[in-house]
This record gives sequence, C-alpha cells and structure tokens, in this order.
Amino acid sequence: MINKEHLMRDLQLVREKSPLIHNITNYVVTNFTANTLLAVGASPVMAHAIEEVEEMTSIAGALVINIGTLDTPWITSMLKAGKAMHSRGGVIVLDPVGAGATKFRTETAWKIINECHPTIIRGNGSEIMALINADVKSKGVDSSADASDALESAKLLAKQTSAVVCISGKTDYITDGERVEQLNNGSKMQTLVTGMGCTSSSMVGVFAAINPDAFEATLHAMALMGVVGEMAAQISVGPGSLLSNFNDLLYTITPQQLANNVRQ
Amino acid sequence: MINKEHLMRDLQLVREKSPLIHNITNYVVTNFTANTLLAVGASPVMAHAIEEVEEMTSIAGALVINIGTLDTPWITSMLKAGKAMHSRGGVIVLDPVGAGATKFRTETAWKIINECHPTIIRGNGSEIMALINADVKSKGVDSSADASDALESAKLLAKQTSAVVCISGKTDYITDGERVEQLNNGSKMQTLVTGMGCTSSSMVGVFAAINPDAFEATLHAMALMGVVGEMAAQISVGPGSLLSNFNDLLYTITPQQLANNVRQ
Amino acid sequence: MINKEHLMRDLQLVREKSPLIHNITNYVVTNFTANTLLAVGASPVMAHAIEEVEEMTSIAGALVINIGTLDTPWITSMLKAGKAMHSRGGVIVLDPVGAGATKFRTETAWKIINECHPTIIRGNGSEIMALINADVKSKGVDSSADASDALESAKLLAKQTSAVVCISGKTDYITDGERVEQLNNGSKMQTLVTGMGCTSSSMVGVFAAINPDAFEATLHAMALMGVVGEMAAQISVGPGSLLSNFNDLLYTITPQQLANNVRQ
Repeated sequence: MINKEHLMRDLQLVREKSPLIHNITNYVVTNFTANTLLAVGASPVMAHAIEEVEEMTSIAGALVINIGTLDTPWITSMLKAGKAMHSRGGVIVLDPVGAGATKFRTETAWKIINECHPTIIRGNGSEIMALINADVKSKGVDSSADASDALESAKLLAKQTSAVVCISGKTDYITDGERVEQLNNGSKMQTLVTGMGCTSSSMVGVFAAINPDAFEATLHAMALMGVVGEMAAQISVGPGSLLSNFNDLLYTITPQQLANNVRQ
Repeated sequence: MINKEHLMRDLQLVREKSPLIHNITNYVVTNFTANTLLAVGASPVMAHAIEEVEEMTSIAGALVINIGTLDTPWITSMLKAGKAMHSRGGVIVLDPVGAGATKFRTETAWKIINECHPTIIRGNGSEIMALINADVKSKGVDSSADASDALESAKLLAKQTSAVVCISGKTDYITDGERVEQLNNGSKMQTLVTGMGCTSSSMVGVFAAINPDAFEATLHAMALMGVVGEMAAQISVGPGSLLSNFNDLLYTITPQQLANNVRQ
Repeated sequence: MINKEHLMRDLQLVREKSPLIHNITNYVVTNFTANTLLAVGASPVMAHAIEEVEEMTSIAGALVINIGTLDTPWITSMLKAGKAMHSRGGVIVLDPVGAGATKFRTETAWKIINECHPTIIRGNGSEIMALINADVKSKGVDSSADASDALESAKLLAKQTSAVVCISGKTDYITDGERVEQLNNGSKMQTLVTGMGCTSSSMVGVFAAINPDAFEATLHAMALMGVVGEMAAQISVGPGSLLSNFNDLLYTITPQQLANNVRQ
C-alpha cells in the first residue's frame, strides 16, 4: 500500500528542490512534457547533441530516454548519455514507445536496456509485452493490450533487467519483479492527449531524482499523474481543455489533495 | 453537392474504426496534429526513421507526407515510405507546405509526386499555384493567393497527377480535374493557429483511410475542419482559446451537428 | 524612458505589415513561438535545411537563431543563414539558450556571434554572464542568476559585439553598452511556460523587422511580452491556462492598453 506521508513529502520535495531532468525524448511531446515538468516545479532540459549529452546528464538528477521518434543519430546520443549516467550511478528512466510496432523500436529498446541499465522502465501494456515476447504487435504507439495482461511480462522484465517496471493503463501496475502495487486513478480522456504516457515517464524521473527508492518514486509519480488527470477530466469538455487544466492542476494541487484522492 | 448521409456515416466510422495514420510531418505541428487526430477518434503515429518507415506504413490506413520542415534525411524517408505505400495501393496524402517559398520545397514536392503518386494533394492557394507555375512565389508558408485564383491550377494538377487536389482558404475547393466541390465554413481566426492546414491534411488521411472514395473523403475531412473551426471561433477570445476549443469540439461534435452546419 | 507613441505605433505597424520572420529555433518551442507570432499579427516560418536557409532568409524581415536544441547539422544551417542575412544588412536575433550549461552551447553561441554578427542578443541572466565569463554555470536552460547581476556582463557583451543586448528576468534590461533601459512587467508564472524566453527573442525579431532602431525595437517587444504576460497571469489558474490566455491577449490587446500598462 502507498505510504501517504511519503507521497505528500515527495511532492513537497519536488517543489522545493526543483530537480533538473535531462530528457532525450520525441519531438511530438517535448513541449507538453517540458510544460508539465515546469508546472509540477521541476526544471526540464531537452538536449540530444552527441557533443553535449554527457555534460548535460552530469548535472541532471535524472535522465529520461524516450524512443518515440527515434533515428540513428539520436540512438547514438541516447546510448552515450545513458552509459554516462549509469557509470555515475544516476537515475535512468526508459520509455520504450512503440516497442512491438516495428522491429527497429523493439531492438533499440533492448539495446538501451543492455547498454545503459535503466533504473525504471515505463510503457503501456503492448510495449511491455513486446519487450518480453517479440511476437506481440503494437498498433502504432497506442496499446492494444490491457495492463493486467501485461503484468506477468512486467514481472519477468523486472527480474531480467533489475529495473522497476511500470505498466500504465486503466489500472497502473508497478513491480520490481516481486512486489506489485497498483493504482486506479486517471481518466479515459487522458489517452486522447498525446504525450500523457511519455510525460508520465518524465514525471517518474522527477520523483526518482528526489527519492532514492525507485519503486516508491515510480508509485508516487504515477499517483500524481492519475489523480491530476482524473481531477482535470472532471472539469474538461474534451481533450483540448484537458491539456490546459492538467497543467493548471499540477501547479495548484496540494500534497493533502493528492493523498486524499489516490486510489489503489 | 455533399451527401449528408455519407458525411455523418464517415464521422461515425472514424470513431468506430480509429484508423492508424502514419504522419511524416514537420516538427512545428506534430503535437497539435497528433492531438487533433486523437480528438476525432483516430490513432496517429509519427515516425521518420529510414529503418522503420516501411514497416510503420505497412500497418497504417493512410500515410501523410508534409514537407513543412524538411531536410535531406527526412526526404529520403518520405520517399521510402511513400513508395512502399504506393506499391501496396494504400492512401497517400501530400501537403506541399511552402512550395513556391523556396526552390527546394517546390522541387521536393514534385519529387514526391513523381515517385510516390499521392492519392490526394492538399495545400493553400499559393502552394498549389506554385506547383503548376514555378514563377509563383509564396510568402513563407502562408498563402498570398486566394483559393479561387488557384482553382485552375488545381484542376490542371489533378489531371497531371491523377490525384484529388484540395485548396484550402476562405472557400475550400476540392477537385479531381473534372468535378469541383466547394466548402464555405471556417473562420479567419483559424489561420492564426499554426498547423491548421497541416492538420487538415492529416484529417484528409483519416477520412481516406475509412472511405475508399478519395474525392468524397477529402470533402468530408475538410467539412469537419471547417465546421468545427467555425464553431470553435464563435466561443473563443482569440487563437489561444481557439486551439483548445477546436479539439474539444472535434471530440464532442455529433454527426448530426456536422451535417446541419456544413455550408457549400 | 520608453516613448509611448512609438510603442503604440510599432504594435500597429506589426499588425499592418505582418513581417515574415525566419526562425531556426529549438523543437521544444516551435509550436508555441509560431502561434505567438501569428497571434500578434506576424508571419512566422521555421526552416533549417541547408538547401534552403539562404533563400528563406532572403525573403524574411528578420532571422532568429535559437540554440535551444542544437546539433551539428543545425549549426551549419544557422551559420549559413546568419552569414547570408548579415551580408545583406538584415536583422539577426540570437538567443543563446543554455550558454553556460555546456561548453558546446557557449562555444556555439560565440561562433554565431563571431561569424554572423547578430543585431540583438537576448538571454537570461546566467546565459549572458556565461558568454562573458566562461566560469559561470547555468542550471540547464533556466537562469540561476538575477538579471541585475548580469547587467555589467550585458554592457560588456554589447560593447564587444556591437549588438543590442537584452537580459530578461524579473526586471528586463536592454543595453547597447551605453544606454540602459529597464522594464518591470511580467509575472513569475511566465517562467513556468516553456518557450516564453525563446518566444521573446522571436518577438524581438518581429519588432526589429518593422523598426530599424534595434534598441527601441527590443524595448517594445519586451514591453509587449511583459505586459501581456502580466495581464494573462492575472486571469489564469496556472501555467496551463496562462499559455492559452497569453495568445488570446496578444491578439486582443490594443496599442493604448499596451502603453497604459507598461512599467519601467
């Protein structure tokens, strides 16, 4: 069960410490992800040039690697940044966007896992299943599998990689291969705003930058995304206003509101 | 004249089938385009890596190629994806953004036309005229010509390429070289949101993925963009709120509202 | 002191002339920057391909170079465009995003300064200080220095480069090395929307395209950004709605409202 004192403490800490999060992410979501991290109180930086990724990651509290619109030069930078971060024992979050949709993505995700050893892997059901079973096909970047169907794959992936694995969906699951926690917040409308998943991964980076317990940090970040998403959907006409209300609520939500509304 | 039964049916079909649309588009509009496609019920994917474009396009209901911020590696990917889509008889939409503004853009648009044989070409007046008459200059990516001035160029382009050609503007024109349909919805305020035109092209891809009649699909997509744009502008203070209201209304509009509000 | 007649005249001129602004900027902010320029009445174009930057810049009223997410091919294009613009005596605005965060950025900023001779350089306190003193470290792309601390560096930089230098922060400073003007509008909430700084640089390009006095143009652009930001923050719940209200107000603000609300 989630420790509500710790949950409230971590949101407070994020706002006090404003951790610098280095994102190498896709160009569809960079703007939304950066705004969301600013709204919660973190300090995002986006940088992908091979010439500077090592230096940038050396001043960051977490590195988030997202393969949403990858190509070869970007992969080179992802690997360079990831190895540098791993070698100094820093936090790495991997979002294997579209794993299972093309071989290129599945293989790239594994290359990053094997060479950079991410602390946390977060994806939707199809993506996590595709990492374990190459025969699973994703429909583009959206999930065609329930999060619950992917839970066994997530446990296996966590054991194989020593990473905390998070599957997001109607119910979110977080596992380290042994323990499993679930979260039941969020709204279906969130799936109609591009980058909600990608931004969750960056939010996981934010919390992991201030809480050395990666399992708990992931749980807290996903709880915040779900609670805020649900609150925002209740006051939104559709996905257009949801996007705006989401960042407003991330900015105004109190630790107490977060703790009161989380549902497992 | 537009067949309102077909128009309503197609919006319904988009929401039921949620077609996967592969966009190789510019980095200015990717976020807005993806959100708009999600709001209408489609499933967008953005992917440009040479290693995966063929595989991605093979699972898509339509490929949308937009040259808004092109460079050489991207052109290579556009051509590879386009040829793969054409060889399996799939739908290709081309948006020749900025044709006429630089020689590079006009020539690239023609290269894509000649090698990929797009099903539909959608642009503003200047762009369509520049494809037919190399002496026409665009002012950057905005049109300096009325859509009506470009109609003869559009007919000629349709005949030369066997594509359905759509010119968007105050009045939108859709032609296959013989037939011409026009649409008179929309708001001037839409021109103050970047990516409205680009997103129209992706919306054309959405409707062409569920309606094999490319002429009718284009008409329906443009009708939806115009009607929703007009409804959104009526409740918006300016282009900031328009952006948000536009995606809300795409999500809430009923087939009946669409049919009631379309004006030719 | 700001000349309010000139300030009102320039906003009017921007709306009448709708100058074409060529931006080579980072992929985090392109969408917001383009929307903001459209909202104020300008005509933005984003283009970075080596094959077309010279031709694009030749039809533009100003070139804005922003190094927010730079890599080697982009730098080549920035230099090519900048040299072409300089050789015809056109306006160049440089935004040295993240100078001081990595050596790569500081060096690239200086390369652009030395080879393209920007008319105006706009950055936050840390960035301007880092250009003068290589030992100053930025925290990613956010400023860790007060604008006032950076004023001496700004004066020095202006003298060394013959550029107008603008530092944005709680108070904005504009200097040509001798004269200093300050502006005291704006809201802390603006720092929670990514791209506010970058978009200020593009706005400086807009005003410099219609006012040949670069010092005054910079003052007017920054006054508009601050006044509109402050008005928008007053009606916003948080950074989500601020983003939307900001572009609405840019569209609706009258020259008189601008002049009435500017504070030095």
